[in-house]
Amino acid sequence: MNVIQGGRARPCRTVSFDRPANTVLLIEQRLLPHEFKIVATLNYRETAAAIRTMVVRGAGAIGATAAYGLAQGALAFRGANLNTFGKHVERVYQTLKDARPTAVDPVNAMNEVRKVMRLGTTVGEQQVLALAAAEEFASSDVEHCRAIGKHGARLIRNGLQVLTHCNAGWLAFVDIGSATAPLYEAQAQGKTFHVFCDETRPRSQGATLTAWELAQQKIPHQIIADNAAGHLMQRGEIDLVIVGSDRVLGRTGEVANKIGTYTKAVLAHRHQIPFYVAIPLSTIDWNLKRGSEIPIEEREVSEVLGAWGMTSAKKREYVRVANPTSGARNPGFDVTPPELITGIITPVGILKPKALWQRRRDLGYKS
Amino acid sequence: MNVIQGGRARPCRTVSFDRPANTVLLIEQRLLPHEFKIVATLNYRETAAAIRTMVVRGAGAIGATAAYGLAQGALAFRGANLNTFGKHVERVYQTLKDARPTAVDPVNAMNEVRKVMRLGTTVGEQQVLALAAAEEFASSDVEHCRAIGKHGARLIRNGLQVLTHCNAGWLAFVDIGSATAPLYEAQAQGKTFHVFCDETRPRSQGATLTAWELAQQKIPHQIIADNAAGHLMQRGEIDLVIVGSDRVLGRTGEVANKIGTYTKAVLAHRHQIPFYVAIPLSTIDWNLKRGSEIPIEEREVSEVLGAWGMTSAKKREYVRVANPTSGARNPGFDVTPPELITGIITPVGILKPKALWQRRRDLGYKS
Repeated sequence: MNVIQGGRARPCRTVSFDRPANTVLLIEQRLLPHEFKIVATLNYRETAAAIRTMVVRGAGAIGATAAYGLAQGALAFRGANLNTFGKHVERVYQTLKDARPTAVDPVNAMNEVRKVMRLGTTVGEQQVLALAAAEEFASSDVEHCRAIGKHGARLIRNGLQVLTHCNAGWLAFVDIGSATAPLYEAQAQGKTFHVFCDETRPRSQGATLTAWELAQQKIPHQIIADNAAGHLMQRGEIDLVIVGSDRVLGRTGEVANKIGTYTKAVLAHRHQIPFYVAIPLSTIDWNLKRGSEIPIEEREVSEVLGAWGMTSAKKREYVRVANPTSGARNPGFDVTPPELITGIITPVGILKPKALWQRRRDLGYKS
Repeated sequence: MNVIQGGRARPCRTVSFDRPANTVLLIEQRLLPHEFKIVATLNYRETAAAIRTMVVRGAGAIGATAAYGLAQGALAFRGANLNTFGKHVERVYQTLKDARPTAVDPVNAMNEVRKVMRLGTTVGEQQVLALAAAEEFASSDVEHCRAIGKHGARLIRNGLQVLTHCNAGWLAFVDIGSATAPLYEAQAQGKTFHVFCDETRPRSQGATLTAWELAQQKIPHQIIADNAAGHLMQRGEIDLVIVGSDRVLGRTGEVANKIGTYTKAVLAHRHQIPFYVAIPLSTIDWNLKRGSEIPIEEREVSEVLGAWGMTSAKKREYVRVANPTSGARNPGFDVTPPELITGIITPVGILKPKALWQRRRDLGYKS
């Protein structure tokens, strides 16, 4: 997508690779929306640290970062001994895996890279194949998002008012995003529409990341408090809801996503407003049998008790908003049942949530 | 209610009057929850300024403040000429009225005071009657809240988990509050229960004021992001919702309250969780014929785009959270239809929203 710098729109990816320098290039997401900066990680340890410290976040983005990180580590190896090289690659793999132990995307991405590189018969061949596989992973992430956009853009008519929650945008992927993909494609098709971004407390990814993205792409939008969506729906000011997901259960059609998603689905259902979930196929979990089995992470209470932002002195600071002697609960995700979901927008088409299991062969299910 | 100072709980009212000093005593609510301070307004102009600048907020609290302010102004008059005195009192009345031009409570309260004081035949008598009427207004505000508490406490069982939204606590009244009254009464009856406070973005009155109040009263509570209530309901962790209201339509049973209230009512309805609205009778609007006629104020977008809080350097600051090039929508209130409301807790009992009109004679309706 584009980033506006010095008044000009420049193309940019969330994650990319600089072959001559052997560095991974990442948008430093912790500085957004107040500062735009691309950082280069100089070796695989720095790449792992970038994943660990949330320089980069989002399923597709950390998958690609780990894939590039594995290639980066492989390329840094000096020598011709395949056995020593193999041990080195395992160290790199483990370091990158440990950077975000609960995430499945880095592991899947690196397994793909490792599988391809092992087709090489020399260290040099394996190094070349590692990078080729990492590039392939990143490209296919972009292609999946592009396909989501093609299918989802059909839902966007001129004049539509669209609500989205949290950030499932291009910052969470290599490019384009999932929930944002239909918006970007519709814009490319010349359609005009308006987006409401839920601020998405407690971490405010809607107000910071999604709003920033939409501003870069010049899509008209407004941020709203999470409390306001119900009122806007009641007044007929929201026509369509599109969100992303952290995990969709292939067997039931249940959708785990950022806390507050369920609430928006309940409201949309009451107001008969279509509610869509946009995902790449890698988000589908074919194993879990019911949504109640999805572990719901309880996050740091400081997120609820305050906010990060920019002071008048242009300093990024955390302010404590809440009463200092009060505590908090902070569930990070919730689960939306299939009956509240109009459709799942995937790279292969828009499906009813309950149809995922019937269509599992087309959707990459491996029993 | 009590305020904890130096480890001790001391009784305190939101608004009171110091007769010897002729000053109105107010909790400086803009400093809460980070600092507790009572300010004395030295004359009626300072009292009006305190209303205007939000030192004091909440229907009952600003009503009592205006009533006391009118008495304060009357008592400051030196002389015996009733005619001159009358003109002076009108100036005081107008100044206090102009401090919050859209609010109905200061006007109703001052009309009551003025009616009573006019029974006096000398300046001295009228001055005495003015203060007596202001004290009576404040006492009856407390009594109404106490009566709400008596009726509402029946709903609280041991072990209950109660959700509340925004602040309809004792800080919004002279004492006790409306939505909080059942909680305080249940506590006095020895019941134990847990309260979840919606943080209530964008102004965070739940995280700042309600949480502060509950901490002073030592009621176990936790703050949650507005996004989290749906998930907690889904997991069976909320048994009852109690909120206050800015305006209840006597003819329809519709409830206008802080933005987000409607969302909580929709969620409670889906989960068959009782949803109650606690109000004094002065909150009932007998004139409006439908909720869609209630004007919904659009407030400053800066509220949505950032947050006020305490920095690590103990300075109260506004931080900009959102993308600097994005705008916002900020509706301040929403309207909840009667079919989502289990009951209205009033000083005369708990009524179905639709029963208000049938019971209008008992509820102070004057045709």
